[in-house]
Amino acid sequence: MATRITVYEVGPRDGLQNEARQVPTPGKLELLAALAGAGLSRIEATSFVSPRWIPQLADAGEVVAALPGGAGLAYAVLVPNDKGLARLLDALARRGAGGPRVDAAVFLSASESHNRKNVNKGVAETLAAFEAVVGPARERGLRVRGYVSTAFGCPYEGKVDPARVVAVAGALLALGCEQVSLGDTIGVGTPNQVRRLLELLLGKARPEQIALHMHDTRGTALANVLAGLEGGITTFDSSIGGLGGCPYAPGASGNLATEDLVYMLHGMGYETGVDWGRLVAAGERAEALVGRTLPSKALRAELASRALGAPTC
Amino acid sequence: MATRITVYEVGPRDGLQNEARQVPTPGKLELLAALAGAGLSRIEATSFVSPRWIPQLADAGEVVAALPGGAGLAYAVLVPNDKGLARLLDALARRGAGGPRVDAAVFLSASESHNRKNVNKGVAETLAAFEAVVGPARERGLRVRGYVSTAFGCPYEGKVDPARVVAVAGALLALGCEQVSLGDTIGVGTPNQVRRLLELLLGKARPEQIALHMHDTRGTALANVLAGLEGGITTFDSSIGGLGGCPYAPGASGNLATEDLVYMLHGMGYETGVDWGRLVAAGERAEALVGRTLPSKALRAELASRALGAPTC
Repeated sequence: MATRITVYEVGPRDGLQNEARQVPTPGKLELLAALAGAGLSRIEATSFVSPRWIPQLADAGEVVAALPGGAGLAYAVLVPNDKGLARLLDALARRGAGGPRVDAAVFLSASESHNRKNVNKGVAETLAAFEAVVGPARERGLRVRGYVSTAFGCPYEGKVDPARVVAVAGALLALGCEQVSLGDTIGVGTPNQVRRLLELLLGKARPEQIALHMHDTRGTALANVLAGLEGGITTFDSSIGGLGGCPYAPGASGNLATEDLVYMLHGMGYETGVDWGRLVAAGERAEALVGRTLPSKALRAELASRALGAPTC
Repeated sequence: MATRITVYEVGPRDGLQNEARQVPTPGKLELLAALAGAGLSRIEATSFVSPRWIPQLADAGEVVAALPGGAGLAYAVLVPNDKGLARLLDALARRGAGGPRVDAAVFLSASESHNRKNVNKGVAETLAAFEAVVGPARERGLRVRGYVSTAFGCPYEGKVDPARVVAVAGALLALGCEQVSLGDTIGVGTPNQVRRLLELLLGKARPEQIALHMHDTRGTALANVLAGLEGGITTFDSSIGGLGGCPYAPGASGNLATEDLVYMLHGMGYETGVDWGRLVAAGERAEALVGRTLPSKALRAELASRALGAPTC
């Protein structure tokens, strides 16, 4: 098994976009600097979706222009279509040379209904439109990540056929995506589903081409990560503090918390490059920015232990 | 791998004893009936520790006298020493014949410091004192369960040597315990620790003699359960709603929630005998009894989904 695991931080985009409180641009940049300073080498920074859809990320251009640098550090920015890519390229051109690496990321759903609800197009149509994004992005020197949402279950269709996920992931790789991240958007997946999907997929893709993006809505995220580790996966997405969640379901949690993921990985002897103390500080920073207690259990436990002077219970 | 898993419910004892609000005896009996009615076949009901230590369970005698029946159902009651056993035997004698099966349970810690803090005796001395409990309980026809606390980490000593856990578990089995439950009391364990401990232990004990009692303090409980399933373990402890937790660390969660465990097991195709809808109703009952929202993620997600009409996110 691999000894080095990449923790792919998605809090500043996937997390923040579901937060009610508007975080000012300097706050976002502080959080990005805290995450990079904690040793996270892959950070999803923002999104060029329409500000009408997601007002929280309307400052994407300013964020891209000011991304904090770091050795071996790469950011990703979500672009839903060719217009989004044009905005990203424009922002990169305006910031000039010498900034940190920025990748593009595209997204669609494995299930037809969720994709239509999300981007108002069918899956095949969305994949076709990505030809005007992935290829041109690569020609401009950008690497592209692909996201497959509802890879384990769909709120409208229930269980999603793993063969369908394999087909969509394969199409994204064929378009030129460097890595495809499989998302358990509603947090319904369990370890046997992860195993089955990886069995099918790893006949057609190399392990490093696949990432798992598990949600912890029902507490199963780290068990699903364990199944992924056992299957040879070396990249896992997570969100600082568990930032994000489900805007329609108050009280329900969403994204796997980076602290919980890193706690387990370090406890198992994996190297992540992440500094635990700085990560916890970044989690505290995220809580201050959104003005609420975030769901990460490892963060809560660490802060409680510090207050007590021992992890007593 | 086994297809049938025993979910060992510990909420009414291990959960309630850490709850601040005093639950009246009829409320406890309602909860026990709800749990038994949901199909849980093993339920830790109460404890004959001194009411001065744990006022919440001062009504242990009344609870034992009125335990609701059910096919294939067995309860367990904690007895710290020979005095506790005498109180249990007395309560059983008073209720007369025909009630449901009641087992005894004894507990100690793998780490010396935690055991001294908890029961004011060393580990060897505690084990010696169990000779006046386990043998006599068996002579009176009771089965005995043993708990080993701090089996993965100790708040005072840090990591606990798995060889020590194996020795203590072996001593409990040699005394006549039918099953030994290994507790991650402070929720620090990760899957490789589970694997290592089981490798050492399953050379000396049969899988059905070992249970895992994982805490979810850092979000790793279900990943640890998965490692246990892979190691052949077929009994896992959990607490309805995640009832319990750490009285010294507000905000920190403790016991693995039964709903989260059952959600994962059912999703993986295991049979548990538990009815999901009735289990959720028992979780809601538990929340009403203690007057607070409990940490179970699967419970929260289920209730949010019902309110929305779909698991949308």
